[in-house]
Amino acid sequence: MTKIRAGIVGGTGYAGGELLRILLQHPFVDITMVTSRSDAGTPVIETNPSLRGFTDLVFQDIDEDQMIKNCDVVFFATPNGTAMKYAPKLLKNNVRVIDLSADFRIQSVSTWEKWYGMQHACPELISQAVYGLAERYRDKIKNAALIACPGCYATAVQLALLPLVENNLIDLSHVVADAKSGTSGAGKQAKPYLLFTERLDNFWAYGVNGHRHLPEIEQELSSAANKQISLTFVPHLVPMARGIEATIYAKITNNTDFLKAFETRYHAEPFVDVLPLGVSPETKDVRASNLCRLAVWRPQDRDVVVVTSVIDNLVKGAAGQAVQCMNIMCGFSETDGLRLLPVVP
Amino acid sequence: MTKIRAGIVGGTGYAGGELLRILLQHPFVDITMVTSRSDAGTPVIETNPSLRGFTDLVFQDIDEDQMIKNCDVVFFATPNGTAMKYAPKLLKNNVRVIDLSADFRIQSVSTWEKWYGMQHACPELISQAVYGLAERYRDKIKNAALIACPGCYATAVQLALLPLVENNLIDLSHVVADAKSGTSGAGKQAKPYLLFTERLDNFWAYGVNGHRHLPEIEQELSSAANKQISLTFVPHLVPMARGIEATIYAKITNNTDFLKAFETRYHAEPFVDVLPLGVSPETKDVRASNLCRLAVWRPQDRDVVVVTSVIDNLVKGAAGQAVQCMNIMCGFSETDGLRLLPVVP
Amino acid sequence: MTKIRAGIVGGTGYAGGELLRILLQHPFVDITMVTSRSDAGTPVIETNPSLRGFTDLVFQDIDEDQMIKNCDVVFFATPNGTAMKYAPKLLKNNVRVIDLSADFRIQSVSTWEKWYGMQHACPELISQAVYGLAERYRDKIKNAALIACPGCYATAVQLALLPLVENNLIDLSHVVADAKSGTSGAGKQAKPYLLFTERLDNFWAYGVNGHRHLPEIEQELSSAANKQISLTFVPHLVPMARGIEATIYAKITNNTDFLKAFETRYHAEPFVDVLPLGVSPETKDVRASNLCRLAVWRPQDRDVVVVTSVIDNLVKGAAGQAVQCMNIMCGFSETDGLRLLPVVP
Amino acid sequence: MTKIRAGIVGGTGYAGGELLRILLQHPFVDITMVTSRSDAGTPVIETNPSLRGFTDLVFQDIDEDQMIKNCDVVFFATPNGTAMKYAPKLLKNNVRVIDLSADFRIQSVSTWEKWYGMQHACPELISQAVYGLAERYRDKIKNAALIACPGCYATAVQLALLPLVENNLIDLSHVVADAKSGTSGAGKQAKPYLLFTERLDNFWAYGVNGHRHLPEIEQELSSAANKQISLTFVPHLVPMARGIEATIYAKITNNTDFLKAFETRYHAEPFVDVLPLGVSPETKDVRASNLCRLAVWRPQDRDVVVVTSVIDNLVKGAAGQAVQCMNIMCGFSETDGLRLLPVVP
Repeated sequence: MTKIRAGIVGGTGYAGGELLRILLQHPFVDITMVTSRSDAGTPVIETNPSLRGFTDLVFQDIDEDQMIKNCDVVFFATPNGTAMKYAPKLLKNNVRVIDLSADFRIQSVSTWEKWYGMQHACPELISQAVYGLAERYRDKIKNAALIACPGCYATAVQLALLPLVENNLIDLSHVVADAKSGTSGAGKQAKPYLLFTERLDNFWAYGVNGHRHLPEIEQELSSAANKQISLTFVPHLVPMARGIEATIYAKITNNTDFLKAFETRYHAEPFVDVLPLGVSPETKDVRASNLCRLAVWRPQDRDVVVVTSVIDNLVKGAAGQAVQCMNIMCGFSETDGLRLLPVVP
Repeated sequence: MTKIRAGIVGGTGYAGGELLRILLQHPFVDITMVTSRSDAGTPVIETNPSLRGFTDLVFQDIDEDQMIKNCDVVFFATPNGTAMKYAPKLLKNNVRVIDLSADFRIQSVSTWEKWYGMQHACPELISQAVYGLAERYRDKIKNAALIACPGCYATAVQLALLPLVENNLIDLSHVVADAKSGTSGAGKQAKPYLLFTERLDNFWAYGVNGHRHLPEIEQELSSAANKQISLTFVPHLVPMARGIEATIYAKITNNTDFLKAFETRYHAEPFVDVLPLGVSPETKDVRASNLCRLAVWRPQDRDVVVVTSVIDNLVKGAAGQAVQCMNIMCGFSETDGLRLLPVVP
Repeated sequence: MTKIRAGIVGGTGYAGGELLRILLQHPFVDITMVTSRSDAGTPVIETNPSLRGFTDLVFQDIDEDQMIKNCDVVFFATPNGTAMKYAPKLLKNNVRVIDLSADFRIQSVSTWEKWYGMQHACPELISQAVYGLAERYRDKIKNAALIACPGCYATAVQLALLPLVENNLIDLSHVVADAKSGTSGAGKQAKPYLLFTERLDNFWAYGVNGHRHLPEIEQELSSAANKQISLTFVPHLVPMARGIEATIYAKITNNTDFLKAFETRYHAEPFVDVLPLGVSPETKDVRASNLCRLAVWRPQDRDVVVVTSVIDNLVKGAAGQAVQCMNIMCGFSETDGLRLLPVVP
Repeated sequence: MTKIRAGIVGGTGYAGGELLRILLQHPFVDITMVTSRSDAGTPVIETNPSLRGFTDLVFQDIDEDQMIKNCDVVFFATPNGTAMKYAPKLLKNNVRVIDLSADFRIQSVSTWEKWYGMQHACPELISQAVYGLAERYRDKIKNAALIACPGCYATAVQLALLPLVENNLIDLSHVVADAKSGTSGAGKQAKPYLLFTERLDNFWAYGVNGHRHLPEIEQELSSAANKQISLTFVPHLVPMARGIEATIYAKITNNTDFLKAFETRYHAEPFVDVLPLGVSPETKDVRASNLCRLAVWRPQDRDVVVVTSVIDNLVKGAAGQAVQCMNIMCGFSETDGLRLLPVVP
């Protein structure tokens, strides 16, 4: 298998670091470029000392011509608003773009601009972007040039709800997703509320009035259901570094074997694991892996279905899912470089 | 003010330890007895070394005659099934009983026996027991001889829902309580899944199919609403030691000023704090205190109301609430010994 | 007892917050002023939401005239270099100054300026300052106008070594203090390495080449020994919020009953607890209290003595110790407002 | 390369779990057997749910004949006292034994029996056992049939001291090793002091009077120095799951370029990384990897050398080091299956 040449824009954050960890172990990838505006000229191992001995890469400034010359695919692990500036030229020059940020996730430009508070730089590309949830868009990803990777919460919530909405099993007018994330989801920027001292032995709901992953989830699930869904989505911050758990609540409209619906939907999926009845997934059991583990419940046999879903926010919720898309786009096996066993404890 | 003589049955667990911490600082209480089956004869400071220098108490075996002779009030911080064995004789001898376990929380004996898996030892006393949620039963607590302290989750969830159900503001047929607890709620017994190594950087939903606090919450909220409520209650284990957060979701039936409803309901409550609009409570801000802090939300102005509620499970969720009841029963100021400032960080 | 009026300069950091927590519960103190440069005009409860319901104080700008008018004593919980600017005028106007920072800890101006990297603003006051370690300077503190509170590490290490150096029991030419601190010791300023995500499940030695508490410890212990001590002091950062543990290693020069030496030295100390042989102190057992707990060891009966010492860095290592000094200066009982029981778990 | 057949005795603990994680990803190993006394008959994925999807193995009882028939090498990840019962017969039948417990670490039977409190079952084998520190015994490991893997603390401490003692650079009569470990080092057995609730926000020194790794370290370093070393070794428990940090203190006897001594000693070692001057290793940067990272210091240019050393206790301190030995014994590349990148955060 010929190796492909990959570039990473934004290598100092957590998603960038995870891309480095995964791609450095990928059998068919050469990382030809890692950029960092703040650390250009610095060896990667200075900001990411865990990589000492594994790479000699040096951070570069973003340089489109270099990217075009040296990369077959470029990952953007950047704040929102960056990928959309560079994507047009890269795509024009046949460099594939896999965006881990939110720039291309929302089909409605006005919705995107409302939630993200900026003007979109290339609205004409949005419709070409394929949403990088392989479990739904595998075929489109194969031929895509531009991938919009799902948000971390959005991944955990959608995988928990797809079998229910695709099969018309729940009341879409009132679905609840109570999601909990480790702190790496908030990034590496130093904000006081993210200090160790503040977060230890502490828990809270944040963004109750509206989190940016809401429109993305509603767009996708409404599309999967062919009907508008109304989701109440509340994220919470857990004093852990990695992991997302989402607990989903919905009224059932069809009494069916829910476990079977999940197993049927996901039996061929390499990265989705439906647990046996009565077993609840723990985030530790997907830590550092690309897996989503799910369980489905009918408490007290009432008319409410509950789904509990866990992922590692940095892997299946970010870098791993991006590499999964890359594998599909490049004709590799979907699991190449991604059969990372969970690290427990 | 004459001091009262208090006994603690079960002083080695977390709730017992917290009773010791609070009562040793209470201006009107002398602890005359602490029991422990396993550690009888051992100074309290050997199992609770944090109390070195603050007490000379020695654990005793449970001895009803001693309790009757030496105690005005006895707290049971014991596993379920213990208080019901001793309560009858204590009450007959005019010793007040404050039970932190579940023995007297459920009015229906058959429901209790189903959920707790044992036969009730004194079903005739259940109707005399007053549910120790001062915010609802203050007047009854004043004259009670037997208090059934609410469960920790039950406290956080009920305080979050009372203003809504009492005022008929929500659809009672489908209420969701997604609750998260620190590990001290699971007690001090060594079980593998509670090891530090297992819980660090880990999160999960447990008891999805049914947690024992469910019937207690449904009983109380249905009573408050004068109508049957159907609650889906899912507890989760957070890698923190203290604290419960509950996020409540319900469809609204009356569009009203929800914040005002909460402020009106709780403005005279010494231990319930309704936060300003847009501020989300963190468990750290009630740590080691008897407070419940609450916030109410209307995400995207849709027809769903969300309440976020935090308590310290060992204080307002256990020992503090028990002492609050004692204060009311004994004619002390309700806040005596309980103006414990939260410990942050 | 007449209450005294206390001011706090720097109320937004962790030491300032802890001063608020302690002084708001102190029976003989009115807090008349809290300052914050960045948050002047803001109610204290906005930055310290744990205090909602306990105070109406509003942050002010530093104003010397206001301090002189409204305060009997002013605590400085500020970065190094602030207290020395305001102390002269306050002292001239008979306002007592208790400095929690390092401005007045080092008697040698040149040493201070070397380690702290700035010019001292009032070197003439240094000799008037009393080092606020009550266990050594109680009598001087009584009449002091200016207190230099010991550093947090310095407190844990000195209390562990005083009985040894005062009684000439160890080889002073090579003493090792391996100290470990929770992250609150590093303050509330947002630095990337202090993020929750970075520190969880992580441990390291920092400042190996030289930490600012070294000269302070060497100065004091050399004075206590009447002979120069050479200390190797290495601090480490523990993924916990509160607490310092110091493990001390020294060659013994006199074979004696070390436990007895410690018990004799500290038997009358209200805040120093010498543990029985074989019991090792845990930081949890001093959490949120003003205690130092100590144990002394002779591993394998060799000629090395080991001392393990724990404090809460924010209490005995900062705010509590400062209030202890205030109590002594003001003629209160030394334990007034400081009989805070440790909070466990 | 022909695959070898490996058995794991004791697959439910943390070291066993880590062996599974590593060997399941090893290109040249088939795991043919995993034993567990308590869980025989149970699929491995029930006790280790992180492995769902990666293995179909079922726990078996220990059966020597099966081991002899099906295994080329057997790893013992068992409590002390188990490997010595099975090793003789396995070795007689040409099955190689790699013992992660302490059964064969100590050459003096009487010393072993004193520290481990039991009679040795096969003292005649001890002298055949090779101590599995590849960095010292690589050549002997090549031809060994029985490997005694070093203890976790022992690994971190020895790698930190070897360059100093082999080159006669320090005073051996008084060396201090202050070591800190995450809780996984204490195993998966449920003991109250290991509960999450007990360990969070908590730190202590334990085993101050004597830890079992002391005789092993003194034996090996004395051998490396050709002279008796006297080590004071104090372990501490850190509220983290994985990782050991050891800080070493010694008086220098020869003033030399210590960094160069370390670089020279370890430049060809695949798993030992000597950091540049002034950079202190963090345990996170070796997490889930087989690396030891080291830094050497001369604080204040005094006559004391300090070394800081970090490993992952479950990898380089246990399972990884065991596989490293297996690679050497089996003629694989020493890094096969062990180029596991650290998992950060």
